[in-house]
Amino acid sequence: MIDNIISKIKFDKSGLVPAIVQDFYTLDVLMMAYMNEESLKKTIETNETWFYSRSRKCLWHKGETSGHIQRVKEIKVDCDGDTLLILVEQVGGIACHTGNRSCFYRKIENSGLVEEKSKSAILSYLFSTFKN
Amino acid sequence: MIDNIISKIKFDKSGLVPAIVQDFYTLDVLMMAYMNEESLKKTIETNETWFYSRSRKCLWHKGETSGHIQRVKEIKVDCDGDTLLILVEQVGGIACHTGNRSCFYRKIENSGLVEEKSKSAILSYLFSTFKN
Repeated sequence: MIDNIISKIKFDKSGLVPAIVQDFYTLDVLMMAYMNEESLKKTIETNETWFYSRSRKCLWHKGETSGHIQRVKEIKVDCDGDTLLILVEQVGGIACHTGNRSCFYRKIENSGLVEEKSKSAILSYLFSTFKN
Repeated sequence: MIDNIISKIKFDKSGLVPAIVQDFYTLDVLMMAYMNEESLKKTIETNETWFYSRSRKCLWHKGETSGHIQRVKEIKVDCDGDTLLILVEQVGGIACHTGNRSCFYRKIENSGLVEEKSKSAILSYLFSTFKN
């Protein structure tokens, strides 16, 4: 059954597909990482996110050391079949290794890159605090 | 000023950076495409999204033929500086060339890939209808 799904995903020349991770509750985009066939299978089988680390060249179970695992709620596939969107419950409310909720905590402004505390970031933090 | 920002983005070996596009109002993830330095500059300068088409090997002004341009509200950069998140107002409410609001209109279920009409998709459609 999983092989049927895998056959519909277009992995690139390196055998990878980009996977956008979005918070199922707040809809914040948390991070983007890459999956190979094996990590996608593991993600489907375990309902937790597994990625392929391009720098370390190995599978990576998100949250294995930090405890900040991601429980998979839905996996969406784009029109071309070459990008995944994973909706997750982010355990601990933190997806980024910097300690930020989302990896996208900087935005481009006139002067350059600035760290932001957006309304959505503050709400996300409050939501996570009340929920845990 | 733009060069200062560009210097902080890590383009890959092909000179590209993945850009996730998210609806500023509904927070739906609409699509993912790639930008090179020139298309990112044009995006910042015009406040509309420009991408680099890997298949056609040229710049691509989103919505140029369909009219479904994307007005840029915010550009976020991830912790590694190698992925962009563009928050946009999606003109016409349709981002995908298939006519769907989002390119991510299919989800993985036991049996394979199924097209969905999720609550969020229905709400997005209603929101867009009332707004336009």
